Amino acid sequence: MGSLGDVQAQAMAFAEPLPLKSGAQLAGYTLVYETYGRLNADKSNAVLVCHALNASHHVAGTYAGEPRSEGWWDNLVGPGKPLDTDRFFVIGVNNPGSCFGSTGPMHVNPATGRIWGADFPVVTVEDWVDAQARLLDRLGIAQLAAVLGGSLGGMQALSWSLRHPERLRLCIAVATAPNLSAQNIAFNEVARRAIVTDPEFHGGHFYAHGVVPKRGLRVARMIGHITYLSDDAMEMKFGRSLRAAELGYSTQEIEFEIESYLRHQGDKFSEYFDANTYLLITRALDYFDPAREHGGDLTRAFAGAKCRFQLVSFTTDWRFSPARSREIVKALLDNRHRVSYAEIAAPHGHDAFLLDDARYHGVLRACFDNLAKEVGA
Amino acid sequence: MGSLGDVQAQAMAFAEPLPLKSGAQLAGYTLVYETYGRLNADKSNAVLVCHALNASHHVAGTYAGEPRSEGWWDNLVGPGKPLDTDRFFVIGVNNPGSCFGSTGPMHVNPATGRIWGADFPVVTVEDWVDAQARLLDRLGIAQLAAVLGGSLGGMQALSWSLRHPERLRLCIAVATAPNLSAQNIAFNEVARRAIVTDPEFHGGHFYAHGVVPKRGLRVARMIGHITYLSDDAMEMKFGRSLRAAELGYSTQEIEFEIESYLRHQGDKFSEYFDANTYLLITRALDYFDPAREHGGDLTRAFAGAKCRFQLVSFTTDWRFSPARSREIVKALLDNRHRVSYAEIAAPHGHDAFLLDDARYHGVLRACFDNLAKEVGA
Repeated sequence: MGSLGDVQAQAMAFAEPLPLKSGAQLAGYTLVYETYGRLNADKSNAVLVCHALNASHHVAGTYAGEPRSEGWWDNLVGPGKPLDTDRFFVIGVNNPGSCFGSTGPMHVNPATGRIWGADFPVVTVEDWVDAQARLLDRLGIAQLAAVLGGSLGGMQALSWSLRHPERLRLCIAVATAPNLSAQNIAFNEVARRAIVTDPEFHGGHFYAHGVVPKRGLRVARMIGHITYLSDDAMEMKFGRSLRAAELGYSTQEIEFEIESYLRHQGDKFSEYFDANTYLLITRALDYFDPAREHGGDLTRAFAGAKCRFQLVSFTTDWRFSPARSREIVKALLDNRHRVSYAEIAAPHGHDAFLLDDARYHGVLRACFDNLAKEVGA
Repeated sequence: MGSLGDVQAQAMAFAEPLPLKSGAQLAGYTLVYETYGRLNADKSNAVLVCHALNASHHVAGTYAGEPRSEGWWDNLVGPGKPLDTDRFFVIGVNNPGSCFGSTGPMHVNPATGRIWGADFPVVTVEDWVDAQARLLDRLGIAQLAAVLGGSLGGMQALSWSLRHPERLRLCIAVATAPNLSAQNIAFNEVARRAIVTDPEFHGGHFYAHGVVPKRGLRVARMIGHITYLSDDAMEMKFGRSLRAAELGYSTQEIEFEIESYLRHQGDKFSEYFDANTYLLITRALDYFDPAREHGGDLTRAFAGAKCRFQLVSFTTDWRFSPARSREIVKALLDNRHRVSYAEIAAPHGHDAFLLDDARYHGVLRACFDNLAKEVGA
């Protein structure tokens, strides 16, 4: 297994507006994307990788001259890796509304000449999937071998099976859910309130003030991190370890290692992530609910799907628990769709979907091996 | 079962400084407390009730002319109730550092003539227990029939059994833990960062600026609320219910009922709770760890206890899970202490300890009935 080595991002501009689920539309926009491997002659070996909250089109490989610039799923995607770029043509695309290159709230709204900020239209999982489909049109790919995603990326993979059922053979949805629970929404809402009530948010137009609502972003990220890790993983990694040899008896100074870790994560995040993007992406999570348009019946929601499905969940993931994946599996089986489901015993909580676990990667490797035979890759 | 009717708070001033675990001391201070029922002739029927984060000495009864002023454990404490004030003399005392009457950060530091604010000394569970013991000295109570508390109050009950082993017959610790887990500390730390980084916190001396760090307090309370409720309870109570008939597609307006509930809880809390108290009390939670001074060995920590123990936990409490109570039970059994343990199947999460659950209250009623016979109450 090797690395992809250096890769390059590309950009594609779309002049035709994108109609959004909200009824609004996104005028001319640009999508930034990367591809790895080669599209075969009959264009049957393309795999789309969808990203979650804090990720981008940079799925694998490195950027020239940038040490430690590996893509977020580099352990999975590359020559000889479970998603083998010697056989598949892999596409990563940054979603509109994100802050990593595709048109987003920090760009200029052509209609006003001002930075979008909080006026960027609310985008949904379905809107992202439609934008991705347009990119595939332009790349000349009629049908994907697979769509793969974890967490919010898994929601996009599921949405592909519903909105463009003929355009994928296999949907791989990892550590995801058919919708957010009240508790999930609650955590998102606290994070959003922390950002929106930061005085430096300026109603979402902080760019004009030359400031960034870093306090809010830090708190949002700290909350997120707690929910990505399992209680046990946090206990094993940090427990009650102290920073110093003795207690300092302070309410504001760091005493425990877990505090140091969380503050560091919050600080890092606030340096590069856009506050409006955080609001948009957490809202896209909140809104995703394919059963909603079918009277809350998930089985009916999946009636029109055509592809095969691979679901994966992790035992200690309390953000998107195995029970939520099983709801999807049940709805698929009710429809007699072809579905395989792996529940991986892993201690890492939600974060497990990004880690190199032998059983998990074994499942995906087998999945892609079979797919390669099927599409002649 | 009746209500206590109107009750009145009392105050007792202590001139002698209280030595604190940190090595500092709290100079002359006042404790606010309430008592219900009558102390019997041999002073054997006193029960001390310890409060948790957001509570006070006002355990039961109402205040004259104030509708809906019932104490926080009014469903448990009163004539004919499980903790029967016709038989027991019940004492509720507000801990120093709190914001409900006893000396705290919003009071004037006599040494400087300025409001304590962030300079209020860091207080621990052990310090509170020692302060409570002094109040009992003044009330002429040598031995308590029982000390009762839930959550942080349960930690105080446990600490009583260790610091003043001869001064209680029974320790009742509900929904508590032998220390906070890394995840518990993490949630506290996020809440503290939200408060401390609120520009209106002014380093903890906001009183002089005529402002209150309400943004931080709101976020802190919202985080707290999520951890008090079980995932299932939140799902049953709110699920994905929308505020309006249709989605509004907004990142900042309320869409889901759970958002409305959390914002309301946060707003209410920020109107009355003191920011420095929030820091102090969450730190007291973080620091509590009786095993620490015994090389991490909880069994050794409990070696010197003399009283009987009643532990109670709730199946859906993920903040202080049954597993944490079982750690305490094991340490007590290792020492051959007399311990009874009830694990109550209740859907409400950590909040269950404040609710009127028949099985839970049945356990406590039996507990106090037996105790009444023992002490002749």
